Amino acid sequence: MTTVDTSLPASLDATLRARLGDGWQVAGDLRRYGEDSSKRWAMPSAIALPDCVEDVVAIVDACREHRIPIVARGAGTSSTGAAIPYSGGVVVSFERMARILEVRPDDRQAVVEPGVLNGDLQRALSPHRLFWPPDPASADQCTVGGNLACNAGGPHAVKYGATRDNVLGLVAVTGRGEVIRVGSNTTKNATGYDLTRLLVGSEGTLALIVEATLKLAPVPAQRAGLRASYVDVASAGAAVARIMAQPETPAMIEFMDAACVRLVREVGGADIPDAGALLMIEADGDRETLPHVVAALERAARGAGLLDLAAATDPAANAALWAARKALSPALRTIAAGKINEDVVVPVSRIPALVAGIEALAREFDLPIVAFGHAGNGNLHANILFDPDDAAQSARANAALPRLFALTLSLGGTLSGEHGIGVAKRDFMDRAFDAPTLAAMRAVKAAFDPDGILNPGKVLPP
Amino acid sequence: MTTVDTSLPASLDATLRARLGDGWQVAGDLRRYGEDSSKRWAMPSAIALPDCVEDVVAIVDACREHRIPIVARGAGTSSTGAAIPYSGGVVVSFERMARILEVRPDDRQAVVEPGVLNGDLQRALSPHRLFWPPDPASADQCTVGGNLACNAGGPHAVKYGATRDNVLGLVAVTGRGEVIRVGSNTTKNATGYDLTRLLVGSEGTLALIVEATLKLAPVPAQRAGLRASYVDVASAGAAVARIMAQPETPAMIEFMDAACVRLVREVGGADIPDAGALLMIEADGDRETLPHVVAALERAARGAGLLDLAAATDPAANAALWAARKALSPALRTIAAGKINEDVVVPVSRIPALVAGIEALAREFDLPIVAFGHAGNGNLHANILFDPDDAAQSARANAALPRLFALTLSLGGTLSGEHGIGVAKRDFMDRAFDAPTLAAMRAVKAAFDPDGILNPGKVLPP
Repeated sequence: MTTVDTSLPASLDATLRARLGDGWQVAGDLRRYGEDSSKRWAMPSAIALPDCVEDVVAIVDACREHRIPIVARGAGTSSTGAAIPYSGGVVVSFERMARILEVRPDDRQAVVEPGVLNGDLQRALSPHRLFWPPDPASADQCTVGGNLACNAGGPHAVKYGATRDNVLGLVAVTGRGEVIRVGSNTTKNATGYDLTRLLVGSEGTLALIVEATLKLAPVPAQRAGLRASYVDVASAGAAVARIMAQPETPAMIEFMDAACVRLVREVGGADIPDAGALLMIEADGDRETLPHVVAALERAARGAGLLDLAAATDPAANAALWAARKALSPALRTIAAGKINEDVVVPVSRIPALVAGIEALAREFDLPIVAFGHAGNGNLHANILFDPDDAAQSARANAALPRLFALTLSLGGTLSGEHGIGVAKRDFMDRAFDAPTLAAMRAVKAAFDPDGILNPGKVLPP
Repeated sequence: MTTVDTSLPASLDATLRARLGDGWQVAGDLRRYGEDSSKRWAMPSAIALPDCVEDVVAIVDACREHRIPIVARGAGTSSTGAAIPYSGGVVVSFERMARILEVRPDDRQAVVEPGVLNGDLQRALSPHRLFWPPDPASADQCTVGGNLACNAGGPHAVKYGATRDNVLGLVAVTGRGEVIRVGSNTTKNATGYDLTRLLVGSEGTLALIVEATLKLAPVPAQRAGLRASYVDVASAGAAVARIMAQPETPAMIEFMDAACVRLVREVGGADIPDAGALLMIEADGDRETLPHVVAALERAARGAGLLDLAAATDPAANAALWAARKALSPALRTIAAGKINEDVVVPVSRIPALVAGIEALAREFDLPIVAFGHAGNGNLHANILFDPDDAAQSARANAALPRLFALTLSLGGTLSGEHGIGVAKRDFMDRAFDAPTLAAMRAVKAAFDPDGILNPGKVLPP
């Protein structure tokens, strides 16, 4: 935490106190609004809890007048420090703008405020047999606004897309305090610049999203699973490429490296065979089509290096199969209290090279580094495990991180598939993008936020 | 055509002549580079045929120095006048940058230059059993660069997405003459601002795209079709909503209004029943799943107002079924030589209201106006038919157009689903977007092209 001057100009305080009433807080437990799941924190100067778009405009106008930073906040589940108010200023929490404004089942659309929890939205959509595809592990805690901010994904993104693929339009307040209405209520749109997808993933640095029109998908009738074990990552990687090259898109295709397989067997107690790599593949469909989709995926999963293949066609068997995947996170916590969890992405053909490189880094830095995740998109979670009370281990973990990013980029990959950049990866952005491209991003930032008051210090390196 | 000063500064002429050799043309048949499928034209001052990225940078640098307009051009199949050099200047045609640089079947990616024809790309991908989803009617004539410029779609977009959904990364030269590399080689990406999807659909006003990494899809094993006739548009519209609300996404779902049905029967000689509205639905899948997908779509197509339902499960029957759709364009030409073809979009639930409104406009303006197109996305082609040699008819057609856009916007729709804005719809942009949103688009334009040299006068109203 950096020490910053947390005092606010008296006139700003008076203006926003008058406007927001008890939605304006400059005393009390402010710190909880200054931390997130990355375990970083910084103290904000004030918390604003807007109730409507006009409140948000008033906040931006007041802060802009005094060049006070504004940090938009959902539920604080970011793992990148994206919502930490390092420069002090006003944290705008959308907890009072958490209404589902409209569900339009015939158009497969929902209109929501940013503070709605992802899980609450899914429950509201369920009677319509619709869902909103982004499904991060934190779905029950995280907000749609947070999902929009970091372009959240999840295991089903391989078939249904991540957040950016499932948003049709946005209402947002720019750093100039102007309300813009971008996108449309339609699933096709060639009308002017696509500011919708530009704002998604911009982590509150371009505008504050105050309303979103979401694209919904029909809930599949049934699901079935396959578990495929391979002698090594190369065999599993080849299977992923085969699966993704045939027309039956899996609903999920999750990867575990050998270390993860060992962990869920030995610590998690999961009933799976030992293997060099594991794929957990889900299909969805209806009663008639599902067996054929599973069969197509099974054909593609078979090949050199396959050790074992188990199908789970009824819900109970499928749940048992996924229990192994769910056992992973608790098992990881038993190894080490410290974890740097990165969500790097590579082209699917490079998964074996990525995992081999991660294994080499684990040896070089003498730390457990495990890899698992969303193989169909090449989006692996590389977890560097260490004891945070051991200074030497912590130093080695932090030294391994830039090497992980360098490895990913050398394989034609990129820094983040679904967590975003925040501060955690900000200083690696100049390795992912050349100077002219970063300059173009900075120019876009200046276009939306000429005074640089929106979430300063995030996404783009200083 | 507006008369503009077509002379270029001598030093620019000398610089680009030296750089481009016979790829720099200031005399000869320049006009063919100044027209497009909208039947508009204007005379460019010069044609530049770059062979590489460095050539494009040289063109932008030289033009920027003298504030000379640059208009990027693919194959000139735009129907919106997007590539017409109304302000003179240099038309940059990408016909010499038409290489398929790489196909990576394991990653389902292709890297291409912008001048590649869409159809040539599809033929090159075919041996890999992959395709690039955008499938405009002009696929054999239009370029990938043109598809990127206007966010082209086509009938398969309902399942596979339009251009913007099928691009992973771009190399582009901004109006500052800088080469930027945006996006990634991965199908998930949460790394910084999404400039890729911003450039797609920007119609050459933000940057010149010089290379694209495209996302490919596996070719389905088989296709089958359904033809469903309804008593009226309301019944057909309800069927579209039912079809899109169930989990088996159709590969196409094309709509024809009663006037189109009558045309293809009476003029096109198609063997289809008379009806108030027609849906032509395609499914794809493999031998085992396809019958079940067709059955699911058939169940959803059935309902109040269904007159007739015909299935075509073998390729010959499917081809015969689609012959009716293909008979439409030639039949339209027999009615009137003049046609204003707009690609408006509404939420699917509003298709009946859109078609009813179009019928009312046809009566009011005493002109045939027919509607057909991509119902699954609510993206209908409204064709205002008139005799261009009849001044009164032409005037009525032009007067009906703003009313069509007003109707579309009143139904929560937008101006274009796949053709883009160009000049044809530019002056309606301030009805689709409010002033702050247009100001944000202009600020983005200025960020990429501070001197306003890239395709001036397109997309954004003056």
